[in-house]
Amino acid sequence: MFQVKVKANVLKDLIDVTSPLVNEVKFNISKNEISLRAVDPAHVAMIDLRITSDAFEEYKTEDLELGIDMDKFASIMRLANSEQMVNLEFNQKQNRLIIQIGNLVRKMALIDTAGMPDPKMPNLDLPGKVVVKASELSQGVKASESISDHLAITMKKDSFQLYAEGDTDTVDLTIPKDMLIDLSTSEKVKSLFSIDYFSNMIKSVKANEAVTIHLGNDNPTKVEFNVAQSKGHVTYLLAPRIESE
Amino acid sequence: MFQVKVKANVLKDLIDVTSPLVNEVKFNISKNEISLRAVDPAHVAMIDLRITSDAFEEYKTEDLELGIDMDKFASIMRLANSEQMVNLEFNQKQNRLIIQIGNLVRKMALIDTAGMPDPKMPNLDLPGKVVVKASELSQGVKASESISDHLAITMKKDSFQLYAEGDTDTVDLTIPKDMLIDLSTSEKVKSLFSIDYFSNMIKSVKANEAVTIHLGNDNPTKVEFNVAQSKGHVTYLLAPRIESE
Amino acid sequence: MFQVKVKANVLKDLIDVTSPLVNEVKFNISKNEISLRAVDPAHVAMIDLRITSDAFEEYKTEDLELGIDMDKFASIMRLANSEQMVNLEFNQKQNRLIIQIGNLVRKMALIDTAGMPDPKMPNLDLPGKVVVKASELSQGVKASESISDHLAITMKKDSFQLYAEGDTDTVDLTIPKDMLIDLSTSEKVKSLFSIDYFSNMIKSVKANEAVTIHLGNDNPTKVEFNVAQSKGHVTYLLAPRIESE
Repeated sequence: MFQVKVKANVLKDLIDVTSPLVNEVKFNISKNEISLRAVDPAHVAMIDLRITSDAFEEYKTEDLELGIDMDKFASIMRLANSEQMVNLEFNQKQNRLIIQIGNLVRKMALIDTAGMPDPKMPNLDLPGKVVVKASELSQGVKASESISDHLAITMKKDSFQLYAEGDTDTVDLTIPKDMLIDLSTSEKVKSLFSIDYFSNMIKSVKANEAVTIHLGNDNPTKVEFNVAQSKGHVTYLLAPRIESE
Repeated sequence: MFQVKVKANVLKDLIDVTSPLVNEVKFNISKNEISLRAVDPAHVAMIDLRITSDAFEEYKTEDLELGIDMDKFASIMRLANSEQMVNLEFNQKQNRLIIQIGNLVRKMALIDTAGMPDPKMPNLDLPGKVVVKASELSQGVKASESISDHLAITMKKDSFQLYAEGDTDTVDLTIPKDMLIDLSTSEKVKSLFSIDYFSNMIKSVKANEAVTIHLGNDNPTKVEFNVAQSKGHVTYLLAPRIESE
Repeated sequence: MFQVKVKANVLKDLIDVTSPLVNEVKFNISKNEISLRAVDPAHVAMIDLRITSDAFEEYKTEDLELGIDMDKFASIMRLANSEQMVNLEFNQKQNRLIIQIGNLVRKMALIDTAGMPDPKMPNLDLPGKVVVKASELSQGVKASESISDHLAITMKKDSFQLYAEGDTDTVDLTIPKDMLIDLSTSEKVKSLFSIDYFSNMIKSVKANEAVTIHLGNDNPTKVEFNVAQSKGHVTYLLAPRIESE
């Protein structure tokens, strides 16, 4: 049995953070939360998303897995207003997710989860950590997009830097410690990332939300923020690009 | 002589309901109203539109016919704000419609109406009738569009249903009688329609407007609603699609 | 040395009026103002733009020239909100313009100004002059675009006219003297212009702004208006098209 009731914007948040990276997703549903973990087709990024049961108005379920086509799910949820109540129910016999928005009942075929992997979240030793406002971060990423396809993130004791370099032009977003929400690093750390991927990861964060970035030297970065009025949490991992020079 | 003065939004409404179905239209102008009746190029749908003379600020005319290119008329009316006054005048010698918006005077060549048909509105015996809010209806139609190209409309004594079925997914919008503005049918009736056409017919209705649908068994449907602050009335006829199974 | 601080919307105005006509521009910077004068690639139109130093919050400079790629500059300025402060600084050693928006520092390569011309503003004897609200003018230009590629501007003692003629349709915007902000002409004057160019020239003017048009007989027109809260001034020259009949 899986039968929940939730405001549309919780599901819209879930879709916004997931769909830029992956299309077919396995939802792991338990008594406490709905979670998903998936790796993008190019194996460059991983997303881990969990939304606790108290983000839902009603929440009755046993442990189960649902294979969801995110594009299809997104097109259904576009029919609902943000504040509208949505009922989700799993019909096991038909293997359908029944989505009810007002008088509208949409039965959606589920994907077979048999072959879908359960990626492990690697244990990373990332000495740098910054907490920064999403709007600051996206301004830097947008500026970088027009001159390069990769950017360098650097953390020092007293500043966080995002740097991109094109043939002739540069972008440098350096934020001193006192203008950040938080910054801590035991040493100077620096890694290089694909701008496309980094941009996809942060594009669903609300402008005023805080984003936490964990960083090492030529190591993956771990990017975290809250969704669904802080009742959901997203963790992205992004593999570094190796500097060619 | 044809010389009228009217708020731009009355003409914008007229354009919005007509242009999804037909491009070249014959306006029939009389002392009481402006009306048009046209069949779409594929002969699947008919539109009948009448706007009474009291929708106009000034209205002086004799009986006449004007052949209008709706695309051209639409591009002119986009220059006016909804609340702006527009003067229309027929110049018989030049065979032009003179459209005046503020200081702007636009002379538009008219189409020869000689070959244009006067389609008859067929007499249909449609036992089912529902009155439903446009926004409910369009949510159902939009949901159906992504999974199929046709939808079934059913009326029973106590409910109205819009149903679409794809290869694996279904959309079911069932509205019980007490959530409808009105419902009356002597028997269960059901017909199948093209979603494209049905969607075009209702896409110009304002969200809060009431739409009346008349239905029979494998018969055309008649869809009606008001425009121009209820001083205009639209009737669409849409031929059914025959179920292949 | 060139080091200024200015609200983003002053620079956005500068970009909006310049980029429809030219892409590579030489800014002439002096103690009193920043100016540019450029001719479009087809040599049909000229723009002269000057923004006085008091449009800037801070303004420290010597006389110098900066070669700017307007597309690149525009994409950077899109990152700033209209009210945000922007710092511009010229780094002579690197030949870069350093643009600072908040914590974001963007270094932009400059274009070599060596080969760039200093077009002279021709001395024109244009007997007609009108001052008209930008929104009236653009309504007439938009109406004309859909039926022709050129329009005639006429000034008489008591009216200003914009007229376009297609194969079958016409647009006539005639504004009587008492509905204009100003009109003065010693004789009837008339010239013909490309709608594309004319439209590009006025498309950046705010709807409520006053536009001054100077006109002669088959002579270029001079179009002027203010930008940057009247601390900037734009002058366009547009060559006439010669009537073929």
